[in-house]
Amino acid sequence: MGFWLDETLFNIHYRGQGQLMKEFFKVTDLPTVLRYAPLFKPVAAEEVPLSQAFERILAADIVADIDLPDFPKSTMDGYAVRASATFGATEGNPAYLNIIGSIDMGETPNFSIGSGQAARISTGGMLPDGADSVVMIEHSERLDDTSIEVYRSVAPGQNTLELGEDIQKGASLLSSGQRLRPQEAGLLAALGHSSVGVYKKPTIGIISTGDEVVPMDVKPAPGQIRDINTYTLSGLVSKAGAIPISYGIVKDDIDDLFEKCHLAHSQTDMVLISGGSSVGTRDFTVEVISAMADSRILVHGISISPGKPTILAESQNKSVWGLPGHVVSAMIVFYVVVSPFIEHISGLSPGGNKSIKLPAILNRNISSAQGRTDFIRVRLIDRNGQLNAEPILGKSGLIHTMLQADGLIEIGINTEGLDKGTVVDVMLL
Amino acid sequence: MGFWLDETLFNIHYRGQGQLMKEFFKVTDLPTVLRYAPLFKPVAAEEVPLSQAFERILAADIVADIDLPDFPKSTMDGYAVRASATFGATEGNPAYLNIIGSIDMGETPNFSIGSGQAARISTGGMLPDGADSVVMIEHSERLDDTSIEVYRSVAPGQNTLELGEDIQKGASLLSSGQRLRPQEAGLLAALGHSSVGVYKKPTIGIISTGDEVVPMDVKPAPGQIRDINTYTLSGLVSKAGAIPISYGIVKDDIDDLFEKCHLAHSQTDMVLISGGSSVGTRDFTVEVISAMADSRILVHGISISPGKPTILAESQNKSVWGLPGHVVSAMIVFYVVVSPFIEHISGLSPGGNKSIKLPAILNRNISSAQGRTDFIRVRLIDRNGQLNAEPILGKSGLIHTMLQADGLIEIGINTEGLDKGTVVDVMLL
Repeated sequence: MGFWLDETLFNIHYRGQGQLMKEFFKVTDLPTVLRYAPLFKPVAAEEVPLSQAFERILAADIVADIDLPDFPKSTMDGYAVRASATFGATEGNPAYLNIIGSIDMGETPNFSIGSGQAARISTGGMLPDGADSVVMIEHSERLDDTSIEVYRSVAPGQNTLELGEDIQKGASLLSSGQRLRPQEAGLLAALGHSSVGVYKKPTIGIISTGDEVVPMDVKPAPGQIRDINTYTLSGLVSKAGAIPISYGIVKDDIDDLFEKCHLAHSQTDMVLISGGSSVGTRDFTVEVISAMADSRILVHGISISPGKPTILAESQNKSVWGLPGHVVSAMIVFYVVVSPFIEHISGLSPGGNKSIKLPAILNRNISSAQGRTDFIRVRLIDRNGQLNAEPILGKSGLIHTMLQADGLIEIGINTEGLDKGTVVDVMLL
Repeated sequence: MGFWLDETLFNIHYRGQGQLMKEFFKVTDLPTVLRYAPLFKPVAAEEVPLSQAFERILAADIVADIDLPDFPKSTMDGYAVRASATFGATEGNPAYLNIIGSIDMGETPNFSIGSGQAARISTGGMLPDGADSVVMIEHSERLDDTSIEVYRSVAPGQNTLELGEDIQKGASLLSSGQRLRPQEAGLLAALGHSSVGVYKKPTIGIISTGDEVVPMDVKPAPGQIRDINTYTLSGLVSKAGAIPISYGIVKDDIDDLFEKCHLAHSQTDMVLISGGSSVGTRDFTVEVISAMADSRILVHGISISPGKPTILAESQNKSVWGLPGHVVSAMIVFYVVVSPFIEHISGLSPGGNKSIKLPAILNRNISSAQGRTDFIRVRLIDRNGQLNAEPILGKSGLIHTMLQADGLIEIGINTEGLDKGTVVDVMLL
């Protein structure tokens, strides 16, 4: 309520100041930007062989259609017995049991165990009828072909798995939107899913812009630079589990950029236009994005540093991004803003990625401006088993600062800085 | 010295106790096992296009052969000036400068800046001779076609990058054995490396054994189970950056196993034989491995739990592993033992993977036996921003415990257990 009043007063105070006002309102705070992610449609599902499903995102829930194990089995090498026949057994007073058979792996025993009887069984072997437990081979001694001594008692159920003890038929096991780790792949194998429905990997179109940018394999003339962003962004896209598709470099020509952007938009699930750090190029990008079919600019500037000059638009259910041209800014915007949008269209459940943030002790003071969220590159240093985060300062055009960086820390929009010794959460790069 | 004496006494005391002694000495502690990794030869290098080098491991050092930037440039949109001409400028007392030109992106300016002169420049534009700084466009106002007012002074070097400010020619930038992140790919692009020398991805042969094991796409008869380990291990191998190659299932037949093991050994860089959790099958595996060319068994049992019945052998510079058959044991042995060997043969520098261990608060007591290292599966729970680790107990044959697990914690060989409230390091699964 207090906030609403403040905002109203603010609007009354500033209303009608024209261009300045417009510029001011253009900048969106990070949480607001991230709330646009669910606007975009996740990609379609496809069926892939289980052997190719690792790390993919499940597109349907998985319910067990069998029990696991689907027969009672031994978890040890030893003798299948009735537990009651071993009660009270010790080294000094062993229990004597008659061996009536041996259970072959992968076969159903054709006999049952009575009191005072035992059968040789291996790990994974099927428990015969009448047996409820397994005596470990180490706790027994074979006397002759037909009898053993048992030196320790076992409880019913000991050293065995009962039917459905691992997975019960009908149990809900995995959910759509979950990323398949090795163990989930193993479970699907156990249930006999030779193929699995997963979300397609989103394709992400990458366009570099700038009259000064030349392809990486060309020697730059004076004043020119090689295209770096295509490579950093392709790596980031792969890391996010999507497929990067490069559309090369577009000079600062609005028609060329529109044509390339239109092509990328028609062929991929998201478009990243990088470069355009100068106001002129940024205006181009905005103009081109605005000219896309059914497009609307959602974000024109984000209150983060580095990365403020970021544009997000929607065009026919796909997002089109104008990223800053400085390599560090573009990478940081990718990590903190673009990645969550890729996760969403990948079909990943919210919270489906357990975010990995390492706590570390900040080893010097950092100042920060209020009114924006700062992302600081840090190097992680192990000091006697205690992780320290050392800020790396440097302009956002300097790639060497990213080579040195192990992670990023966030300084909140209402924070003026952090003191040396503060415990910070480091997002790994 | 004290240790040497104790060991001698120990040997004198136990010498000649035959089989029991042999069994005792078979079990190797984890650090000793890990020290075998450098025995094995890293894979060969290959040249790949830069666009495919992401996440690969560099096979040569990279030294800068150019300066970056290789011309002085602007990092802002504004006016290239001599800083001295702006000294003392304020809103109330602006500096007046004559505009003598505009610098096109990607071109070399054909004029130089004198005192009292300025040229329009965009972010990334080449600084003309005579200019040493850039006034941001926001801190200036254009009066007419040929003059501006400047409201703030700039220092020499402000809003510019000088030649080599990012990367200096001759600087050592990247080292062999380093994994290429997006920023390293970007650096290589900046230096014009259209291809890059990286280590090949190791290939890892996977053999499942057991009379009771059937292929995943076959319906198991009573007493049979589907092959799970091929899928969990393939996922783990991929996650470790290597290429899994499945050799299917071998029944408990020593000749078949030898033949398959020989084939896998000749075609891949490492062989994993899984299954054989029963003593009988394990003996088979040992016999087969011993029969391989120039083989020697290095480890026959590791003092870890789960995962004790693990075999490591060397055959012609390659490692051959007998992994436990229980799915959880095999996965944990992979994480804590096999992975470091794969990293080594992948060419990764020691310490090249910053190990990701999340601190969390143990939320219940755990007991552990001395004389072995225990690995406990845990679920991570966020309690008001504080990460808690909740142990998941359950037999090592139960895959559902791995589905619930987010990570592992280690309980040292000399520790009897951990109390609730202890801060533990969680290795993510």
